[in-house]
Amino acid sequence: MAKEKKFVEAVTPMSEDFAQWYTDVVKKAELIEYSNVRGCMILRPNGYAIWENIQKNLDAMFKETGVENVYMPMFIPESLLQKEKDHVEGFAPEVAWVTQGGMNTLEERLCVRPTSETLFCDFYSRIIESHRDLPKLYNQWCSVVRWEKTTRPFLRSAEFLWQEGHTAHATEEEAEERTIQMLNIYAEFCEKYLAIPVIKGQKTDKEKFAGAKSTYTIEALMHDGKALQSGTSHNFGDGFARAFGIQYSDKENKLQYVHQTSWGMSTRIIGALIMVHGDDSGLVLPPRIAPVQVMIVPIAQRKPGVLEKAAELKSTLIKAGYQVKVDDSDKSPGWKFNEQEIRGIPLRVEIGPKDIEAGQAIIVRRDTREKLVVSLDELADKIGETLEIMQNDMLERAKAHLASHIYEAKTYDEFKNIVENKPGFVKMMWCGELACEMKIKEDTTATSRCIPFEQEQITDVCPVCGKPAKKMVFWGKAY
Amino acid sequence: MAKEKKFVEAVTPMSEDFAQWYTDVVKKAELIEYSNVRGCMILRPNGYAIWENIQKNLDAMFKETGVENVYMPMFIPESLLQKEKDHVEGFAPEVAWVTQGGMNTLEERLCVRPTSETLFCDFYSRIIESHRDLPKLYNQWCSVVRWEKTTRPFLRSAEFLWQEGHTAHATEEEAEERTIQMLNIYAEFCEKYLAIPVIKGQKTDKEKFAGAKSTYTIEALMHDGKALQSGTSHNFGDGFARAFGIQYSDKENKLQYVHQTSWGMSTRIIGALIMVHGDDSGLVLPPRIAPVQVMIVPIAQRKPGVLEKAAELKSTLIKAGYQVKVDDSDKSPGWKFNEQEIRGIPLRVEIGPKDIEAGQAIIVRRDTREKLVVSLDELADKIGETLEIMQNDMLERAKAHLASHIYEAKTYDEFKNIVENKPGFVKMMWCGELACEMKIKEDTTATSRCIPFEQEQITDVCPVCGKPAKKMVFWGKAY
Repeated sequence: MAKEKKFVEAVTPMSEDFAQWYTDVVKKAELIEYSNVRGCMILRPNGYAIWENIQKNLDAMFKETGVENVYMPMFIPESLLQKEKDHVEGFAPEVAWVTQGGMNTLEERLCVRPTSETLFCDFYSRIIESHRDLPKLYNQWCSVVRWEKTTRPFLRSAEFLWQEGHTAHATEEEAEERTIQMLNIYAEFCEKYLAIPVIKGQKTDKEKFAGAKSTYTIEALMHDGKALQSGTSHNFGDGFARAFGIQYSDKENKLQYVHQTSWGMSTRIIGALIMVHGDDSGLVLPPRIAPVQVMIVPIAQRKPGVLEKAAELKSTLIKAGYQVKVDDSDKSPGWKFNEQEIRGIPLRVEIGPKDIEAGQAIIVRRDTREKLVVSLDELADKIGETLEIMQNDMLERAKAHLASHIYEAKTYDEFKNIVENKPGFVKMMWCGELACEMKIKEDTTATSRCIPFEQEQITDVCPVCGKPAKKMVFWGKAY
Repeated sequence: MAKEKKFVEAVTPMSEDFAQWYTDVVKKAELIEYSNVRGCMILRPNGYAIWENIQKNLDAMFKETGVENVYMPMFIPESLLQKEKDHVEGFAPEVAWVTQGGMNTLEERLCVRPTSETLFCDFYSRIIESHRDLPKLYNQWCSVVRWEKTTRPFLRSAEFLWQEGHTAHATEEEAEERTIQMLNIYAEFCEKYLAIPVIKGQKTDKEKFAGAKSTYTIEALMHDGKALQSGTSHNFGDGFARAFGIQYSDKENKLQYVHQTSWGMSTRIIGALIMVHGDDSGLVLPPRIAPVQVMIVPIAQRKPGVLEKAAELKSTLIKAGYQVKVDDSDKSPGWKFNEQEIRGIPLRVEIGPKDIEAGQAIIVRRDTREKLVVSLDELADKIGETLEIMQNDMLERAKAHLASHIYEAKTYDEFKNIVENKPGFVKMMWCGELACEMKIKEDTTATSRCIPFEQEQITDVCPVCGKPAKKMVFWGKAY
């Protein structure tokens, strides 16, 4: 047992040091490995399989709305990046530049895409001619590079995986509709698959995307009360279209500029998954996104019939549609339990000689550690039921955590007191001016997370400056 | 009709100019679009969807053999690339170099991965300790960059998509077994899904991968009689392991070097798909890899009930498991036929008022243009059957084409004559020496495609130099 304890204790308790807990979980669940390449991580099989499941489900949701996938070049010539003024200002300081190809120095530098608006605009300017060509609803799954100074697994790295959708529409209304539609898809995906409730809203001008007319966001709350921006959707209006000359002839044969959107979700969301559901034993994965949903651990596996029974149960459960593995390695059961727990596999099935004799198995839930003794003929049904219950319970717990960490401030002193002492979101009215937003950040390090769609009137004035309040904002410290 | 004819005639006939035919098909089937980025292509929805299907099926075959997916950084520090001598010599001349990050000049240049052996080796050296950690069977789907001077859609571009598998094993035998296993998977995949028969064999030393002990290849034959290397699998022995210090302790607790393999297939295979099956009307996609298998074209679609019936047939066929679309745009039926043909959609279903009255529809095969009048209650069954027949017929035709383009040369004059006048593969004995291989290339531009697994003894001497023959080689001009 000493060996096993040591293994578990290697994860720093959350309450002791949340940041270290996070790093420990990421490393010990074998989600990532650090690399020799500055700021870049290796996604190991356990980590990449989560991303594969995210991709599969999110991609299906995109395609249901008519989105098609494409693949764009990873390089952007400097002159192309510079076409939209705000955009280049936002991104140029943090890109990686290719200056040599083969043995030659390039005439023009190429940046490794930090995002692909400029490439899509260039593409659209060539393939859009008529209103019949609209809308264009394209998306790509790829990696992007942003030369970040400090890095943290999943949350911030020089290179990361994501999807970026880029659409072009005939009208402003259609573009706005698509922007909101994709934000809703992100929110639905987070709730349904990741069991993560989110706050939906608009970013302030200060926080919006470089070149966008408006940026919408979903914000999730981590276990430590910090917010994590989990997906964004931007309406560009016709700003990029004017910079890149993307025009179509309408039904009256008049030239019009298109209206564009873009929207993205990245491997950052895996950071949210860890920090919303994890516990001191490691990762806890929601059943609908877990690459392995059930780990069967044979007890006294050298006794005759045990491994055979474990294999039989596995194939029954796989036939029933579940993702199942058997841990038949020569480690002790306790060690196997710990590994399954650290990896966050939703259910464990224990089966030993006595269970076989009694025609039963034991199901253990990863989240509550609840044990169910189940007869073998009912196993598949019970597994299905328990996975469903666990998925719902995880969402409910996350919702309760979110609800109990939303505070309200009527005065600026109250606000500062909450930010200092009660991690979470703080609702407070805002005059709409940058100065107050800056002051709040400077005084408290909290930032405006979003102007939520569901507005309330808490006070009539902005508690910071006393001017008339325009909007209620969710504020908070964030990753 | 004039309009439609013009559309079809826009594809240059194969017999007139094969290279132009290829470019026309790629462009007009909307598989790719050229970009403003030197040597890089845009994969449009029609092209990317083919790659998605290739990925899905090939990935499933990999996973069945225990392979797991990971994601590695896209950058390789120069010092890491240089660790294996042959490898760096092979790749350094054709890589893109990142020299600036954000506003700073990097202390060490980073190349954009041309392939990831060095990264995997570095990774393996850190995570492999014991024989219990072996084998490691990792793969990644990503894009790579090789600074090619001349580029052609799918066949050669500065950036392309591929998968690269990298495995580490305890023994030489296991590594060799895995190398061959993956080559067989490639061959099986090509036959089963792409309806492309291939020749399996080993590359000569001249043609093998930089750093490999041995390279195996599958070679396909294009419509114009040129070969296309379609997938390769390399056995590295312990060369990389020694360069990177990848050791494990065996059961006797002695340190041993691992034995490694790598294997890859890229978007190049889409070039093969086009050049093996296409015809003068455009692309012809094998049903098992076609993103859209059936295009329903309503005839006289403004007549009452036609579009409703088309939609009904679509949903029936989708329920039966097929990929189906309806072209209900306001183009003429003839125009729609041409588009469906250019895109290579395997089957077209025509349904008009008269058909509805007669309770029937017309199925048209893309490959043979054969028409079947089918009663509507049998439509789903007939579609399934016809797709199956078409898939098999396409493979049989490709096999016949391959078989009829394999020649045999007993003398060097005979060889030169065949290479000049009969495009295809030429079987000829070889002494095993580089000089003869070089001479053949210089005299004829034909290269050694592979030393096939199935050997024959055509002559006792090498027809080029007269020395004793060691192996029979497949020679040919290649893409």
